[in-house]
Amino acid sequence: MEIGRVVEALDGEVIGREMHALAAKLFPINRSRTGDGVRETLRYLQTLIPLEIHEVPSGSALYDWEAPPEWNVREAYIRDPGGNKIVDFASHNLHLMAYSVPVRETLSLEQLLPHLHSLPDHPSWIPYRTSYHQEKWAFCLPHLLLQSLASGNYEVVIDATLGPGSLTYGETFLPGEEEEEVLVVSHCCHPSLANDNLSGIATAVFAARILAGARRRLGYRFLFAPSVVGPLAWLSRNEPQLARIRHGLALAGVGDAGPVTYKRSRQGEAAIDKAMAHVLRHSENAARLEPFTPYGYDERQFCSPGFNLPVGCLMRTPFGEYPEYHTSADNLDFIRPASLADSLEKCMRVFEVLEGDRSYLNQIPKGEAQLGKRGLYRGLGGGNRLGQRDFALLWVMNFSDGRHSLLEIAEKAGLPFASVRAAADGLLEAELLRPVSHQAEVGNWV
Amino acid sequence: MEIGRVVEALDGEVIGREMHALAAKLFPINRSRTGDGVRETLRYLQTLIPLEIHEVPSGSALYDWEAPPEWNVREAYIRDPGGNKIVDFASHNLHLMAYSVPVRETLSLEQLLPHLHSLPDHPSWIPYRTSYHQEKWAFCLPHLLLQSLASGNYEVVIDATLGPGSLTYGETFLPGEEEEEVLVVSHCCHPSLANDNLSGIATAVFAARILAGARRRLGYRFLFAPSVVGPLAWLSRNEPQLARIRHGLALAGVGDAGPVTYKRSRQGEAAIDKAMAHVLRHSENAARLEPFTPYGYDERQFCSPGFNLPVGCLMRTPFGEYPEYHTSADNLDFIRPASLADSLEKCMRVFEVLEGDRSYLNQIPKGEAQLGKRGLYRGLGGGNRLGQRDFALLWVMNFSDGRHSLLEIAEKAGLPFASVRAAADGLLEAELLRPVSHQAEVGNWV
Amino acid sequence: MEIGRVVEALDGEVIGREMHALAAKLFPINRSRTGDGVRETLRYLQTLIPLEIHEVPSGSALYDWEAPPEWNVREAYIRDPGGNKIVDFASHNLHLMAYSVPVRETLSLEQLLPHLHSLPDHPSWIPYRTSYHQEKWAFCLPHLLLQSLASGNYEVVIDATLGPGSLTYGETFLPGEEEEEVLVVSHCCHPSLANDNLSGIATAVFAARILAGARRRLGYRFLFAPSVVGPLAWLSRNEPQLARIRHGLALAGVGDAGPVTYKRSRQGEAAIDKAMAHVLRHSENAARLEPFTPYGYDERQFCSPGFNLPVGCLMRTPFGEYPEYHTSADNLDFIRPASLADSLEKCMRVFEVLEGDRSYLNQIPKGEAQLGKRGLYRGLGGGNRLGQRDFALLWVMNFSDGRHSLLEIAEKAGLPFASVRAAADGLLEAELLRPVSHQAEVGNWV
Repeated sequence: MEIGRVVEALDGEVIGREMHALAAKLFPINRSRTGDGVRETLRYLQTLIPLEIHEVPSGSALYDWEAPPEWNVREAYIRDPGGNKIVDFASHNLHLMAYSVPVRETLSLEQLLPHLHSLPDHPSWIPYRTSYHQEKWAFCLPHLLLQSLASGNYEVVIDATLGPGSLTYGETFLPGEEEEEVLVVSHCCHPSLANDNLSGIATAVFAARILAGARRRLGYRFLFAPSVVGPLAWLSRNEPQLARIRHGLALAGVGDAGPVTYKRSRQGEAAIDKAMAHVLRHSENAARLEPFTPYGYDERQFCSPGFNLPVGCLMRTPFGEYPEYHTSADNLDFIRPASLADSLEKCMRVFEVLEGDRSYLNQIPKGEAQLGKRGLYRGLGGGNRLGQRDFALLWVMNFSDGRHSLLEIAEKAGLPFASVRAAADGLLEAELLRPVSHQAEVGNWV
Repeated sequence: MEIGRVVEALDGEVIGREMHALAAKLFPINRSRTGDGVRETLRYLQTLIPLEIHEVPSGSALYDWEAPPEWNVREAYIRDPGGNKIVDFASHNLHLMAYSVPVRETLSLEQLLPHLHSLPDHPSWIPYRTSYHQEKWAFCLPHLLLQSLASGNYEVVIDATLGPGSLTYGETFLPGEEEEEVLVVSHCCHPSLANDNLSGIATAVFAARILAGARRRLGYRFLFAPSVVGPLAWLSRNEPQLARIRHGLALAGVGDAGPVTYKRSRQGEAAIDKAMAHVLRHSENAARLEPFTPYGYDERQFCSPGFNLPVGCLMRTPFGEYPEYHTSADNLDFIRPASLADSLEKCMRVFEVLEGDRSYLNQIPKGEAQLGKRGLYRGLGGGNRLGQRDFALLWVMNFSDGRHSLLEIAEKAGLPFASVRAAADGLLEAELLRPVSHQAEVGNWV
Repeated sequence: MEIGRVVEALDGEVIGREMHALAAKLFPINRSRTGDGVRETLRYLQTLIPLEIHEVPSGSALYDWEAPPEWNVREAYIRDPGGNKIVDFASHNLHLMAYSVPVRETLSLEQLLPHLHSLPDHPSWIPYRTSYHQEKWAFCLPHLLLQSLASGNYEVVIDATLGPGSLTYGETFLPGEEEEEVLVVSHCCHPSLANDNLSGIATAVFAARILAGARRRLGYRFLFAPSVVGPLAWLSRNEPQLARIRHGLALAGVGDAGPVTYKRSRQGEAAIDKAMAHVLRHSENAARLEPFTPYGYDERQFCSPGFNLPVGCLMRTPFGEYPEYHTSADNLDFIRPASLADSLEKCMRVFEVLEGDRSYLNQIPKGEAQLGKRGLYRGLGGGNRLGQRDFALLWVMNFSDGRHSLLEIAEKAGLPFASVRAAADGLLEAELLRPVSHQAEVGNWV
């Protein structure tokens, strides 16, 4: 079944709830750049989609980086002078700064304070902190709790391992009729943060499930990997095949209540950029279209100048613009089933355009074809109202000169792609159009 | 005499009245896609301009179409149960649906009603209806009259012929000094509709009369033909000469009180499009410039992808946007002498640009020429006010590098074409400019 | 020292006062198109900067013009019937129309009046008038004074010489490391008009003094010359070297209180145009960017089509737009130290861009470089705030593909050039960038 029809048939309410349920399932796992939390997450995804899990040994060269040491935590807590566990990793993953080194010490409050992070502006939230490049340890806690700490000796325990192991990522490939591929990438290195990025993971998983059941001209490759080093690992292992990646999308922060934001690829006017701009322009809801910037999510690596792949980034509210970002307030309430479903629909609409954006040759190029006698045209003699369907037929016929693709025609006409595609399908059936297979076929009758 | 001067000399009030009088003369004739009404119209035009009348036999192939059967009406009426002629083609052409088949029957009101068209929203107007492709008959009448019909038997008479004959169109050609041509096309297939398209016919006729008396670098070809099939007939008979058509204009609906609207050709930035955009920008009145769309008037056939000729369309209020369109309210009061004269002037101004838009080479390219010593420049030393004429001289000198035409210079300068043309004429006379005949002449001093 | 650092170190208040003092020093001198006033002005400038003074004999061919006769005045006055000197050139240079021929006569008021110019709208101001091309004489005076003149005989004396001599201009050249040059031109042909153009002269002189002490990649050539004929004289003597002029700027009317206005060169998007647009966009104050027009200051000659050099014009309020223009109200109060200093700073900022606008190749093009481990990046893991410096590093790395210059990167990033340049300098030092010396070096890895 064509992707367009699959999308029409989706029930946004049902699928939004299923996506949220997946996020809820994965929320408690302690994902980080490496470690067992990532593996557990990917193994759960294997129950939903076919997924190959790759391990890249610590220290492997990843261009200017290398695969990091592996980090795992058994337990981590702080006991107050009275012996109470006042901060416990078991109760919230964010309590422990990611990549904290092991420690088992008793410290005075004064000695402890430099190892505590809190958010004075949001005193009940726990911040998310990492220290990938410096060997440190720290705990994160609500500012209210921090302020309540009394003098005395505190027992600090971090029972963690940080050493040789591997970086883990997951990959799915759904082949298409042609060799060209769409790459979808979601980072999976954050613990207990719902929008960042269980929302992206859920969207990618459900997109893969839907695509698996649809007719695909293009291949679709899904990557679930830790930020920065994950994409670099994949790129370094797949360089010879990169030319097949014709379109790409990073999915991150796609579950909050804000409108959709699309950040263009470095190329700026790649097919994915044009398709997304079109889909958002014809969306009922507000949407933002942003130029490329060299900071953001994993599109950064694919858009580095040595690759310059056409990979854009789909978000809702951009990551610097909501206070819940990288705090415990980015929780399961912060993401909405309706937003998740809407983000998924935008992806599928874009895939619909990428699948169907072809050029055709009008077989009756001189003068207009008589659409009426072929039952294609509904206009009544003397009346002056044409419907969108009639307009679409005229636009497709007039601009199917082999030089304008259906998306370009839709843009010229101000019509949604689906209606132009439907018109083209009708005209193909009536043998008024012929697909252009080689550019050389475009005659010189124009 | 140069067209620009001819236009300056025109008295808009007088010519507007003459144009309206021509429309009034032709208003009662029953024009349709074919038939004697078209012939009578064209024969009357022969009294005003040289016009060749062409006949294309019914059934002749016109690309995807064919020349239609010919339709003529002797009489057509409905008698009510009391024997009164309540609807009579003799009193208004619109009462009979165009291409109605012959009928002579007595029908109950119930049987008659499906054959009656009216406009509930405009109950005193008669709609205009056609049935070119289905063999049907119908009458059109005011909704008020339709509502007043009582039960009983109605006598219906349509004494018409619909069968082999020919499609008729008229053509005038005014040769120019060069081989390139401007094509002007007006559809002549509507009965008793003043704006659509006696306005276009009158504008074309008066343009031809004025051009006949002016110096012409370009040839001008005028076509009066029924919509769709007329242009297709002409195109099919003139394919070898189409390369000569360098500019084209469909004239339709150019008499109502609204501002001028120009719809660009499919090429979008053809010389005619640029010239019209310039003329409208420098017009005192509001004007609309619209992108190409593949529906509208006869520009559609010329702008089909197999021809892609640079033919735009000049209208006033676009055809879907006024309620009088295709009704008896599109009558002689609906069109205004001042609007007709203004539409004509816009056409002539565009022809003025097309005639005069050439590139020149400044003969003193290094530094400014001393215009003062040649009596060309009016500026006073120390004063700071230059007139439009002085500015035009400077612009033409500076940009006459063989790469900028006068229209491009006028656009850069924000000056009307006529003032730039006048400056160029003065500079030519002073031998400060030389026309560029071949692009190769543009030296490499730039 | 790099120009950027020199500019940072300037004290605008001090330098503005010095510039104003220079204008005050030169204000009383009677400059005209030729003559001793020009020589005296240039000799004074020689005390501040190295300056070669050139003399071009009257009658020398200057393309379509010729070097004018030389004009010098010993004294000029009008005595009223009572014997009082009511108008005296010794009290204000503007009292005498420039290029007035000698006269020594007694005239009735009626005979005198046609030789008097005044400004009825500004009755206390003296207008500035010239008559370069017609042999005439006239006096300029306040309208109030003119209105007070009683009948009687007036003695008129103009003790002047107008005959063979020479046109004088001054030139300074500061060589750079490379052969390419920046040309700065200021007209020096107006007497006792402060904004027009002692402001331009002062700005050019101080720019030359600053540049003399800075490291220069480019050469800088300063020209102080009478309008029209001065640039034509220089052009005619320097044609073989014109290809070295890669950027140029006319400085005129840069001292009034209005915001800066930059008029683009004829090329419109030359490097100087882009650099100035960038500098003005990142300026704290309002600024105007105007398209090229073929009238204005001396950029006209350099921008004639036979040269088409990239010479723009920096002004503050454009010359036609303030009533003081070409009157005695354009005096030392009309120009402001702060405006002069600001105009100078804009020039230096533009030179900073021209000096530093190079393209580089990212040496780690695949994936992002690890800036943190090189001490370049300040971002904290988990935090979401990057500073302008961090952004600049990312932009420079991502777009240093040999196809984007630093200015283009600054424009894409919306960052001031100086911050992008500083980032590039840091990255160069860390060997993450390499300058592109030949375009061919830009590999095909993109």
